[in-house]
Amino acid sequence: MKITLAQINPIVGDIDGNKEKIIAAAQQSKDSSLVVFPELSLCGYPPYNLLAYADFIERCEKALDEIAERCNNIPLLIGVPVRNASGKGKPLFNAAVFLHQGKRQIFKKKNITGYCTNDNFRRHGSDVSTLFEPSDETNILQLGCMKVAVVIGEDELLTTNLFEEKPDFIVISDADRFDYQRAAKRKETLSMTAKKHETALIYVNQVGGNANLIYDGGSMIFSSTGLVAHSLPFFEEKVSTFDCNDLVTIKEDKLVIPSKMELIHDALVLGIRDFFTKQGFKKAVLGLSGGLDSALVVALAAKALGPENVLGILMPSQFSTDHSVSDAIASAENLGCKYHIVPIKPTFDTFEETLKPIFQDMPFDVTEENLQARCRGVIVMAISNKFGNILLNTSNKSEAAVGYGTLYGDLCGSLSVIGDLYKTEAFELCRYINRDKEIIPWHTINKPPSAELRPNQQDTDSLPDYPVLDAILYQYIECAKSAEEIIEQGFDETVVNKVVRMVYRNDFKRFQIAPVLAISPKPFIMREMPIVKK
Amino acid sequence: MKITLAQINPIVGDIDGNKEKIIAAAQQSKDSSLVVFPELSLCGYPPYNLLAYADFIERCEKALDEIAERCNNIPLLIGVPVRNASGKGKPLFNAAVFLHQGKRQIFKKKNITGYCTNDNFRRHGSDVSTLFEPSDETNILQLGCMKVAVVIGEDELLTTNLFEEKPDFIVISDADRFDYQRAAKRKETLSMTAKKHETALIYVNQVGGNANLIYDGGSMIFSSTGLVAHSLPFFEEKVSTFDCNDLVTIKEDKLVIPSKMELIHDALVLGIRDFFTKQGFKKAVLGLSGGLDSALVVALAAKALGPENVLGILMPSQFSTDHSVSDAIASAENLGCKYHIVPIKPTFDTFEETLKPIFQDMPFDVTEENLQARCRGVIVMAISNKFGNILLNTSNKSEAAVGYGTLYGDLCGSLSVIGDLYKTEAFELCRYINRDKEIIPWHTINKPPSAELRPNQQDTDSLPDYPVLDAILYQYIECAKSAEEIIEQGFDETVVNKVVRMVYRNDFKRFQIAPVLAISPKPFIMREMPIVKK
Repeated sequence: MKITLAQINPIVGDIDGNKEKIIAAAQQSKDSSLVVFPELSLCGYPPYNLLAYADFIERCEKALDEIAERCNNIPLLIGVPVRNASGKGKPLFNAAVFLHQGKRQIFKKKNITGYCTNDNFRRHGSDVSTLFEPSDETNILQLGCMKVAVVIGEDELLTTNLFEEKPDFIVISDADRFDYQRAAKRKETLSMTAKKHETALIYVNQVGGNANLIYDGGSMIFSSTGLVAHSLPFFEEKVSTFDCNDLVTIKEDKLVIPSKMELIHDALVLGIRDFFTKQGFKKAVLGLSGGLDSALVVALAAKALGPENVLGILMPSQFSTDHSVSDAIASAENLGCKYHIVPIKPTFDTFEETLKPIFQDMPFDVTEENLQARCRGVIVMAISNKFGNILLNTSNKSEAAVGYGTLYGDLCGSLSVIGDLYKTEAFELCRYINRDKEIIPWHTINKPPSAELRPNQQDTDSLPDYPVLDAILYQYIECAKSAEEIIEQGFDETVVNKVVRMVYRNDFKRFQIAPVLAISPKPFIMREMPIVKK
Repeated sequence: MKITLAQINPIVGDIDGNKEKIIAAAQQSKDSSLVVFPELSLCGYPPYNLLAYADFIERCEKALDEIAERCNNIPLLIGVPVRNASGKGKPLFNAAVFLHQGKRQIFKKKNITGYCTNDNFRRHGSDVSTLFEPSDETNILQLGCMKVAVVIGEDELLTTNLFEEKPDFIVISDADRFDYQRAAKRKETLSMTAKKHETALIYVNQVGGNANLIYDGGSMIFSSTGLVAHSLPFFEEKVSTFDCNDLVTIKEDKLVIPSKMELIHDALVLGIRDFFTKQGFKKAVLGLSGGLDSALVVALAAKALGPENVLGILMPSQFSTDHSVSDAIASAENLGCKYHIVPIKPTFDTFEETLKPIFQDMPFDVTEENLQARCRGVIVMAISNKFGNILLNTSNKSEAAVGYGTLYGDLCGSLSVIGDLYKTEAFELCRYINRDKEIIPWHTINKPPSAELRPNQQDTDSLPDYPVLDAILYQYIECAKSAEEIIEQGFDETVVNKVVRMVYRNDFKRFQIAPVLAISPKPFIMREMPIVKK
């Protein structure tokens, strides 16, 4: 029996486009006994409150009818929202619909509370989880002589009692977001489950970037001994058929999970690319400071969009060092990206003059530092508006954590590319990118980080060294340890208290940042904090 | 038997401060048989991911012990997170703890899925709902000869089977956010429930502003005939004791719900005031354009913070009309607020000159419109930084809906005051404020709205009249009607499609806006939409 894993990259809301994608995948799998698509793949995941619109559900229904008609002879299992016609409970089910030769069988998701938690996190507090009614039906599909159990969402596997039905195998239709630990964890969980219940598993995951969320694909088939018999690539759309008769002969595991940096690199490139292509954008712009962060982002953007579509803007001030300009130029030229040099001194001076009657002789302070960052923000946004280039934000997670950045200045942008990477991880990723040759100038990587907003300023003037800072942040954010517990681990008390206070006080800044490509198990968006607090 | 409603205004995370507030409320209620506090009042609501920190829970425990000791003789019911010591399920319970003379009884919330949905919405997609384990215990408190049922959160009342226990009355400890329909709906639901089950209800709600969320208080006691026998004011901290023996003699309802505009006005004033005082801020700044929105916000801010703490900045351009300056001055002077005039032409011209080598002879377009807004953004932010005044944002919901605003320009600010009011509601609120005398200049209210970013520009150049626009937006946003359904109601097809498309395309802007004081049943934050979609 042949099973097809249709690891597709749908666009949220693009029901017609996704329909065609599904039909194309089906038609290249004509001899398959079942073609499995990801969770909610017809409407794209996550659809959030688009589900609240009746016409959205209607369009899904019509598209499903058309697929049934056009792929009549191909057995399909498609993720789609369906109405709850019972009149009881919430209006929809999160379903996987089996279609074949006029037959239609609906499998409904059970584990709905999971929708608004864990990895299916959301930026805002929508009421989507109120739209899906959890089901308590037993999801069994009879496929010829084979008994197939259907599960929607991998987390359901942990609590399901489907194994009691003694299925021949279990199909899992999923949309599970990427983080750099996720692929290994997912493989481990599924492998253990297959082994424990001596049941083969077919796992199909969505691939693609949807604003801050990245789906990594990595669909797999497990033998009943828990070995990966077949796997699809990460971060690529792929339709692939596997003959399950081969499962019995599997002797060794076929999947090696790539390294952390390789995963992050490929995730970010896909995240950028899909953010642009899915919205019909082509060109990016970003400020190039000569520092590590912007050098990293321009390299990732050039990879994702092509260097000809990435424009760098150098905006030196009176505090910029010579090497900041030469490093920035080198980072653009290494990639073949176009760049402009736009000094900010004239606009900075005009603001100072304009504000002179109010500021009088008050000394240079954080106001003037922010003012420089904001002059740069206005310039790159003007270029973005004039030429239609989308502005990429270049802040990293360490900065976002401690509030080391200027709202409406360097925190401008439509997409934050490395906002979920600690500075030390950004360094590591630069080295990964440079593993064969210099793409990011080595001088940029090796010089001491500086915001260059005052004469001779260095990041370490106001922050601890990044390895120390990031270790503290990791304990505080990822591990939810208190300041006291972190100090007990041996970190300096003054430093820990200072860092924790900075994180605590900067939720208001993080609230206004663009969507951040999420690559860690704990992006800030998943760690909601009150803004007004004490 | 006397019951005290302790309608307090806790600060989220300020466990020590809230503890003292609770003790003070208890000590003025010494002859009470029960002092009831709101949901999670010891840590403040909503605590979000502060709950993930072990030391946060420890500090709650210690504070509770201290309250128990210091108020030993006063029977208290206090909302607090408690550990789930069973080792099974999620780590915490959302509890109301009864304390009296060394006795301690814990009542746990059942209805936890509601936490991340409906009115308990959240800005981000946190995993707080994974922290509370739902309980299935029967929450009965024996108070002398009285049998008291305890409910946490009003929504639980609808599904509870506590009435089967035939309690003498039910106590509801709640933290239910305000919207302009909520007080009436809450009263109706509670009244019907009391009547249906012939049981008296004691309802205690939190009061206060917590960033975007406003809690209106309005605690009530219902007779078993469904009449409000006693009620506490909206939007005010209040501790009040009622003798329940008087319940039997109640013949008429004691609560008249204020008008929509009175509620909204008082909610916004409290929202602003608490945003400032709870964070230790005192002074506000905002741009005054001479238009309705900024005139409304400055009036609300002056009311909340005192006119001496509100600074207006007039930033005319070459496109500003004379009346825009005179109206802006009048709006500040009517209130007694200080203001500065800072023209933007010099900085605008310098940017144009700086960008000339790149823009060359490309025509004036939205770039230059945005540039003006961003010059203003930089100026008010510089003043905000230099003097420590917090910038108030003045955008309204109609503008936010259609994207009629400039990111990093007029969309700057730490708090959006009227971002959940449609323009027509903003007009109405101005008239409410002016009901006795001119506070907001009538000329501002009566002139045609204009952004003044081009010569002779008016909002109606690119938008339909506000009554039409707002009616369409209300159908699309609040009622989740599709374009087709709205057209069927008789609205112009071209206009509806244009408006719906604008709303659909501007989720990326709304993503980066400051917290918006939520006053409607459907603020944008509750209507999460994918940013990348088609």
